Amino acid sequence: MKKGISRVVISRMPRYYRYLGELLAKGKERISSGELSKLMNVTASQIRQDFNNFGGFGQQGYGYNVQYLYDEIGKILGVDKPHTIVVVGAGNMGLALASHSTFHKQGFIVNGIFDINPELKGKMIKDVEIRMLDELEDFIMSHQVDIVALTIPKEASQDITDRVVKCGVKAIWNFAHQDLDVPDDVCIQNVHLSDSLMALSLMMLQKNN
Amino acid sequence: MKKGISRVVISRMPRYYRYLGELLAKGKERISSGELSKLMNVTASQIRQDFNNFGGFGQQGYGYNVQYLYDEIGKILGVDKPHTIVVVGAGNMGLALASHSTFHKQGFIVNGIFDINPELKGKMIKDVEIRMLDELEDFIMSHQVDIVALTIPKEASQDITDRVVKCGVKAIWNFAHQDLDVPDDVCIQNVHLSDSLMALSLMMLQKNN
Repeated sequence: MKKGISRVVISRMPRYYRYLGELLAKGKERISSGELSKLMNVTASQIRQDFNNFGGFGQQGYGYNVQYLYDEIGKILGVDKPHTIVVVGAGNMGLALASHSTFHKQGFIVNGIFDINPELKGKMIKDVEIRMLDELEDFIMSHQVDIVALTIPKEASQDITDRVVKCGVKAIWNFAHQDLDVPDDVCIQNVHLSDSLMALSLMMLQKNN
Repeated sequence: MKKGISRVVISRMPRYYRYLGELLAKGKERISSGELSKLMNVTASQIRQDFNNFGGFGQQGYGYNVQYLYDEIGKILGVDKPHTIVVVGAGNMGLALASHSTFHKQGFIVNGIFDINPELKGKMIKDVEIRMLDELEDFIMSHQVDIVALTIPKEASQDITDRVVKCGVKAIWNFAHQDLDVPDDVCIQNVHLSDSLMALSLMMLQKNN
C-alpha cells in the first residue's frame, strides 16, 4: 500500500466496502466502474483514481470482480483482522457504541468499558463489565487494546488521551467535542456530532436561499 | 452567501466556529490567519480560501476580529436561529442524541422522539415524551420540525425517510448504516459510525506499515 494516502481518499474507502458488501449479498459477481459510479453517485473517474492509490484492482474493461474487490478493500481497511476497542465513558453514547451490533460483525470488539460513576461499577453491557476509570492503565497493559473510544466531556478528553497514549494505545476514536493533541504515531478519528449538525444546518441554508 | 459551496468547505466551517468560540471564552479579541492556522493545524492559505467563499471577513493584515468572525460564521451555519429535531429510534444512540447537552446549547432542540417499542411509550427523555411511530406524520404536520435524526436499523431507514420527506421535512441526519435517496431539495448529513471506525483502522495500517 502507498504511504501518505490522503484523508479524503481514506474516508471514502469504507463506503466502497459497504456498497460492495451489499452487491455481494445480492449475488452480483462483476461490476464496471460505470455501474458502481451510478450506484454510489460518484464519478467513474473518481472511483478509478481512488482505486489507483491501492494498485487499481484489475481490468476495468471487463469490470471488477465484486468478491475480489470486496476482499481487497477489506484487507486495505484492515477488517480482515479483528480489532479490540475500549470505550471510556458509559453514558448513552458509550453504551450505544458498546452495544452496536454492526461493529461486532465487522470485527470491532468492545472488550472494556470505563466510567467514573461508582453506581455503574460491575454493570454488564452485553458481556462486558463496566470498570472504574482508575483501573484503565492496568487494563490496557494486560489486555489487547487496539482502539480507545472517548465518549466523555471535553474537559477530560485530553487527560484520558495522554493516559492511554502513555500505555501504548495507537488509535483514538474521539466523540468528545474537542480536537486532541497526540504524538505523530497515534491515529485520531473524530466524530464531532455538533459539527455534523451545524454542517447540516449550513447545507439547509444553502439550499433554501 | 455563494451557492454551490463544496461539501468539504461546508464540513470545515463548524470547526472554525468551535475554535473561535474557545478563543472568545479565553478573552481573545483579534487573531491573524497565521495564528489561527497554527492553532487549528491547517494552512493559512486554506483558511483564507475557505473564508473567501463567504466574502473574506475583514482585513487580514490586522487580523480578524474574533467576535465578529464568530458571529458571522454562526450566521453562515444558521446557529443564530434555533432548529428543532425529531429523533426516530429511541435506542441508545437516539437517547444519546436526545439527551446531548451541547446540541441544546447550540440551539438544536429535540422536540420529538419516536420508536416502535410499545414499552417505551410515554417514557420521558429530559422533557420530551417518547411517542409511537404511527403518530410520526401527525406530529410533523402539527409541529415545527427542521431536522429528522434517524437512529434506526438500515432496513427501515429509507421507508421512514420517504414518510418524513412527504410531510415536508428538508433535512435528515442519518445514523442508519445506509445511504438514503431523497429529492434534490432535501439535505442529508450521514454519520456512518462503522465507516468512521474502518477509516481509523485504515489509518492505523498506513502508519504502521
